[in-house]
Amino acid sequence: MNLSQRALEIQASPIRKLMPYANNAKKNGIHVYQLNIGQPDIETPQEMIDMYHNFEEKVLAYGPSQGLDVYRKALVKYYKKHHISLEEDEIIVTTAGSEAIIFAMLVTCNVDDEIIVPEPFYTNYNGFATMAGVKLVPLTTYAETGFALPERESIEAVITDRTRAIMICNPGNPTGTVYSYKQMEMLAELVKKHNIYLITDEVYREFVYEGEPAVSALSLKGIEDHVIMCDSISKRYSACGARIGCIVSRNKQIMSSLLKFAQARLCPPTIDQLAAAACVDLPGEYTANILAEYDKRRNIVYEELQKIDDIVCVKPGGAFYIIAKLPIENAEDFIIWMLENFNIDNETVMAAPAEGFYATPGLGRNELRLAYVLNENDLRKAMNIFRKGLIEYKKSH
Amino acid sequence: MNLSQRALEIQASPIRKLMPYANNAKKNGIHVYQLNIGQPDIETPQEMIDMYHNFEEKVLAYGPSQGLDVYRKALVKYYKKHHISLEEDEIIVTTAGSEAIIFAMLVTCNVDDEIIVPEPFYTNYNGFATMAGVKLVPLTTYAETGFALPERESIEAVITDRTRAIMICNPGNPTGTVYSYKQMEMLAELVKKHNIYLITDEVYREFVYEGEPAVSALSLKGIEDHVIMCDSISKRYSACGARIGCIVSRNKQIMSSLLKFAQARLCPPTIDQLAAAACVDLPGEYTANILAEYDKRRNIVYEELQKIDDIVCVKPGGAFYIIAKLPIENAEDFIIWMLENFNIDNETVMAAPAEGFYATPGLGRNELRLAYVLNENDLRKAMNIFRKGLIEYKKSH
Repeated sequence: MNLSQRALEIQASPIRKLMPYANNAKKNGIHVYQLNIGQPDIETPQEMIDMYHNFEEKVLAYGPSQGLDVYRKALVKYYKKHHISLEEDEIIVTTAGSEAIIFAMLVTCNVDDEIIVPEPFYTNYNGFATMAGVKLVPLTTYAETGFALPERESIEAVITDRTRAIMICNPGNPTGTVYSYKQMEMLAELVKKHNIYLITDEVYREFVYEGEPAVSALSLKGIEDHVIMCDSISKRYSACGARIGCIVSRNKQIMSSLLKFAQARLCPPTIDQLAAAACVDLPGEYTANILAEYDKRRNIVYEELQKIDDIVCVKPGGAFYIIAKLPIENAEDFIIWMLENFNIDNETVMAAPAEGFYATPGLGRNELRLAYVLNENDLRKAMNIFRKGLIEYKKSH
Repeated sequence: MNLSQRALEIQASPIRKLMPYANNAKKNGIHVYQLNIGQPDIETPQEMIDMYHNFEEKVLAYGPSQGLDVYRKALVKYYKKHHISLEEDEIIVTTAGSEAIIFAMLVTCNVDDEIIVPEPFYTNYNGFATMAGVKLVPLTTYAETGFALPERESIEAVITDRTRAIMICNPGNPTGTVYSYKQMEMLAELVKKHNIYLITDEVYREFVYEGEPAVSALSLKGIEDHVIMCDSISKRYSACGARIGCIVSRNKQIMSSLLKFAQARLCPPTIDQLAAAACVDLPGEYTANILAEYDKRRNIVYEELQKIDDIVCVKPGGAFYIIAKLPIENAEDFIIWMLENFNIDNETVMAAPAEGFYATPGLGRNELRLAYVLNENDLRKAMNIFRKGLIEYKKSH
């Protein structure tokens, strides 16, 4: 009995696929420093946890399909703090950023339509595209230039009559790259000229370590009807398990259709929305402290990587990822080798092979994504093991 | 700028579309008894609420894509109580039953493939089918026969080379119909013979008021590889806002693909799973009491409906819905009229027009779905208003 074509084609998560090797290592008493997954170690704000503790309703009921009023109001306030002026009706609460991205694909694309995405890109876009029957057209960016956005001409070269949108993640997962205002304006001109959508994944909005804040697509003038912004509280408040995100657009037709998609699945989780609403009033120091912490980690990872001969790695300005191009052939093979054969004092390191973040076959085979989600001390130990492991690996390969 | 075809085609929820009229009535000081939506008034078990209150982790982290171990173990135990023997790996936790059904469609069907569904059916199947690009082929059932499953020949007559599955909801939303063992065996023979899947929505498993318990597709012999079962805790524990469901199959290839779909969206909500896990150890009386309460309500609604001249309505054996075929032309028009023009002591009633539960155009226009989710006293008042309103409506139409 056959499965569907999409069931056969959907990719296994490159972030999670090496977990069996990690679990084996753990079984053998090895501590594994996990730099493979963007699960922050930062504590979830107590204000948020309190909302779970204080839930007093007798019935845990459905909320509205577009999200709880109290949470949409809180989101309006949150975006205002970021100088983005929105009406409640321009926001639909989703079950995490994942659902926001699937909805954005479904509402813009017919089956076999195309979305242009700079690669390497967040690997789960592939899964969502398979579900939605959308073709992701990669626009290759390079470690050597810090994964900078290609020039306008290169982007226009891949626009076809099936192109429905350009999709970016800014600040970028997995690259850490932050696009400049000039680059965002160039994208605005492009989507306007070609009458296509600009879908942005802005879940790392706060995570910018130098220069200007990240430019939200929602702040670009003249393309209000073109922008669909996907967001999530997962990283911002270290609340990945709450599964609360949202999808935002000023295009009324888009929002009216999105509401119908939202109605089909009834509503996002109720108490988790109440918890998320509590985060909007966190003081500015909350984010400042987290940023200072991540910036320290960014410096550690970057400095440690620089000690490796022939590494290619431009210091990224945002998110909490860094992609390193290694002087080896196969980064996945290296990580499996680390998990199976290398440890210092019974400790080893895991990272995500970057090949899974590219759509173009063969690219990224010698690259790794490291998520700097461990505390300073652990991170120093992890990076030391990583470097020494790489030297050993190169000797034996 | 165009939206996608599916964005233009996706239906507005027929359950929620009349809410603006209800909200208007409420603004005018009218109390609206809402029989339109399956939101139970039963209290969520304190054991479940306690889990939210007792969450003590410092980081609200991602869980595994397949669901928390502790919850999958709890589910194995739950199904065992229902004489269904499962391994943990045969279960993936989903974000409510909605995600389970979307996953079931995606994993079995290519775009434009067909799933046969007895109509009237749970209206949100339409939305999921639009998202998945699947064609739902209705198999009409009738109020006059209590929406009994058609004979084998009628079902075989609509099987084509694009048919990938038969999908049923048992006990049925919106009909309340419970299929017999013999009918389930007939479906088993059919899916085996035609080498297609049997997708079942069993979220009302416990809600059977007479005769034998509902037959789970998972208990049918010889079609283990054909069955995909979708479930949810929403109705069972009056926890619609938790958004916890699951998808179950003994087909290893299906489960392996489903895990990849699950990985793309990372995980279902974490604390809500912990809360759901607490429900498995609720004593048998918990369900018995709820059932007794709903049975009382079922009898009230049915008796009150019988007082209406020329009504067609067979007493349903399960779930908490009843479809009534009314001696009028247009049930939606009647409900709008009730909300706008009729009240007794400033109280009126709302129900869901059944037309939206049919895929065949024109069917169900004179039918309503009533969800008996109010307490005895309110329900008696609501049904009295309903009857008197109908008499008035008929006079003026």
